[in-house]
This record gives sequence, structure tokens and C-alpha cells, in this order.
Amino acid sequence: MKQLLVIGIGAGNPDYITMQAVKALNRVDVFFLLDKGQSKQTLIDLRREICERYITDHAYRFVEASSPERERGDVDYTASVDALNLAKQQTFERLINEELSDGQCGGFLIWGDPALYDSTLRILQAIQASGCCQFEYEVIPGITSVQALAAQHKIPLNTIGRSVEITTGRRLAAGQVGEADSLVVMLDAEDSYQRVADRQTEIFWGAYLGTPDEILLSGRLADVADEIERVRKAARAEHGWIMDTYLLRKP
Amino acid sequence: MKQLLVIGIGAGNPDYITMQAVKALNRVDVFFLLDKGQSKQTLIDLRREICERYITDHAYRFVEASSPERERGDVDYTASVDALNLAKQQTFERLINEELSDGQCGGFLIWGDPALYDSTLRILQAIQASGCCQFEYEVIPGITSVQALAAQHKIPLNTIGRSVEITTGRRLAAGQVGEADSLVVMLDAEDSYQRVADRQTEIFWGAYLGTPDEILLSGRLADVADEIERVRKAARAEHGWIMDTYLLRKP
Repeated sequence: MKQLLVIGIGAGNPDYITMQAVKALNRVDVFFLLDKGQSKQTLIDLRREICERYITDHAYRFVEASSPERERGDVDYTASVDALNLAKQQTFERLINEELSDGQCGGFLIWGDPALYDSTLRILQAIQASGCCQFEYEVIPGITSVQALAAQHKIPLNTIGRSVEITTGRRLAAGQVGEADSLVVMLDAEDSYQRVADRQTEIFWGAYLGTPDEILLSGRLADVADEIERVRKAARAEHGWIMDTYLLRKP
Repeated sequence: MKQLLVIGIGAGNPDYITMQAVKALNRVDVFFLLDKGQSKQTLIDLRREICERYITDHAYRFVEASSPERERGDVDYTASVDALNLAKQQTFERLINEELSDGQCGGFLIWGDPALYDSTLRILQAIQASGCCQFEYEVIPGITSVQALAAQHKIPLNTIGRSVEITTGRRLAAGQVGEADSLVVMLDAEDSYQRVADRQTEIFWGAYLGTPDEILLSGRLADVADEIERVRKAARAEHGWIMDTYLLRKP
């Protein structure tokens, strides 16, 4: 039987890796690297650095595959993600069938935690359901950018006894969010915090969290939203990509 | 200046600890242990085990303090938590003032992550605001029971492009939750999943996550809710305490 390990490596800081992830890294024969877009090289470099730092006595190799990209523009979001996942599924099947022998262990290194806004688990479940590859897999959780954000701002995510909603920039912009007084926004490409009506809302914003390039800003939207937009645009231009996350807290 | 480290040690499995937390543990001179109730000895033992395992070359000691307990029964929840936190604040002030010398480092070992349903950060902020103790503090994130739950069930927390709400059993029972199709429930002492109207809702339930006593159950509420209630009651009777978490996914 082939083994797959879906390993959360944390968000940015190599020290975010868990002991469980280190043990898992040391079982992997073949690491599959699938990244895309402008952040690709940075993210692949970080994964190689983590392997070099933590794998002590096990031979391993990397297989890079070009990751399919989602169709953008005026398309149905869920349908475009489904199409993307089908393309990814075919890539994964090829990697598992061609790059891994029976008894070997393959590894996916997931930025953050495989459980949050990552498609790897969904794709592996679809492949198992299709019956065209045989494998077993395990999941290793990792520190998410949400946790890095809270730790670096030194704040709790929730207020006393209340809920926290974790959502996407897309949903915030579309008004598709609930009533929770603490709202964490990920994957926001379009400064959706600018659309929040109550400008007394507090924002705790972070980019490149856990890395040497980390930027933190916080305050009432009325006071800091324009500054965040300016800083975000400049950082994106400088690095060629940006990953940012924020918490909105209702007044 | 006194230093305080608020260290997330993960949920249950000692291997959930991060490299960042290991480095932090090795800076601490005095660990403050504040637990309560029937789980107290188990949780204190786990903290001692983590220190023994990961602290390699630094002398440290433990200071145990009895943690105030929240008034239960027919009281206002937020007011009772506020009162509890004021009592905890006085305990923390005493510990920082009496047990820590200038230049020394104190550590709080937090089950899971300090950002989620834990009062330590709120209490330290209140003490700093009151001006009666001087200290600096850092926060180290840790793997939460929410992440352990998802990893052990091998599921994503969110569905494609949708939100996840993290809430309490109290709020679920009171109907104070939003419309997110993925709802994570923590701190549920009263089997609140039994109050969910749509019995086709899927539940992914876990207790003592990451420990040798871990129990996992999942399925439609119609099929498994009564079994979960039975198993939960028996496990609580056997261990004297229970910590459980679950994800509800709308059909």
C-alpha cells in the first residue's frame, strides 16, 4: 500500500512546525510540490528550507508539478473551483501512480493547516472514491495564519462567550457573512474591509505573517483602513505577491 | 523588566507542540499552573510531561495556584465570566509580583491556543491597563482541539468558498448561531447537538483528542446523536471529566 501524509507546516515561520510534523517529514520518500502564480518560488523555497532543517536521517526527493489555475473573471466561483479540483485530481493521480512505488510514502506540505481553505483533503477523498488509485493517508494539523495573526497582535480571536466566523474576502464583499462580532477574513484580494459599513469596527491586519517581512496594523477602520490599503498595495508591488489575513471586531 | 510567555501547547498530543513553543519553554524560569475541577490533575500532569520532554538545559520550577471557579447556575454568563476574570487577575498579579524577580521569565502553558476560548490574554491586558504590575509578554500559538478534530477525521473545516463559525455549546443551545454551513462547537457541557432541528446534519465528534483515550464518531445526527450521547456519558463517568469538540455540517 502507498502512504500519503498531508502535513500542515504552519504559516510562514519555520518554527511554527510541530513535533508531529517533524516526525511525519522524516517518513516521506517523495514530496509533491504544487504551487502556482507569483508566490510559487517563495513558497517552494520555504518548503525546501523546512525539509533541510528538520529531516535528519531519511533520503527524500522533490517532484514539482505545475498546479492548474482557477479560471477567473466572470465565472461561477464554485464551478470554477470544482473544475480546478478536477484538474488537480488528475495531476495528483498521475503523481501517485507514476512517482510513488508500493510501500513508499508521499508527502504534501500544506501552508497553514490542511483543514482550512485548502483543497488537498477534498481531492484525496475524490480520488479514493473514484477507486483509480489505492493509498492510505494521514493528516497533520499546522498553525494557520489566523493563529499567527492573533499571536502577533497578542489578542484573543473571540470575545467572552461569543462566536468567531472565519470567512473569505469574497464573502465579506458580497455581504455573505453572519452576525458574529469577531470575523476573520482570509483570501481577500480586493481590500474588502473597505466595504464594511460601520467604520468604528476594529481591524487587526497582518501580511506575510511569521516571516521576516511581516507587517502588522490595527485600529478603527475609520483611522487605519486607508493606510492598510496603501501599505498592502506597496508591499504587493515590492514582493510580487501578498498573503494577508485580518480580524474584524464589531464595536 | 519581567517577561511572560503565553505558550499554546496544543490539544492533547505532546507532539502537537511547535518548535517555537519548545524554544519558548526553554526560556521560562517559573511556570504558573492554574487548573481547576476534576480534569486538574490530568492537565497538570500533561504540562509537567511536556516540560520534562522538551526542556533540555534550563532550570525551572512550577508554581501551582488554585484557580478561581466561575459561579454557575442561574447567573448572567458574561457577568460571571467577568467576575471570574477579576478574581483570576488578582491571582495573576500576586504570582507575577511574588514569584518572579526582575529579569526573570514566567510561563503560562495554555491547552490548545491562547487565542481561542482562553482568558489569559484578556487578563494580562487588564493587568497592564491597571498599571499595578510591569511586564512584557509574548504569545505563542498552538494546535487547537478544532484542528485536532479535523485532522483525526481527515476532513476540511470549511466547504468550498464558505464560512466556518466557531462557537460554544451554550450558544448552539440558545439558537445564537449564524448561517454558516460549517459550525464548530466547543465547551459543550450539555449535548447541545441534540437540539439541532435538521437531523440530516452531519456531525464529526471527538473527545480527548490527540490523547491515547481519543474517541471519534461521525455520521448524520439521526443515526449517531444518541450513540454520541451514550458514549460521552460513559466516558465522562470513567475519566471523571471530558473535553470534546464537534463540527456540524448542514446537508
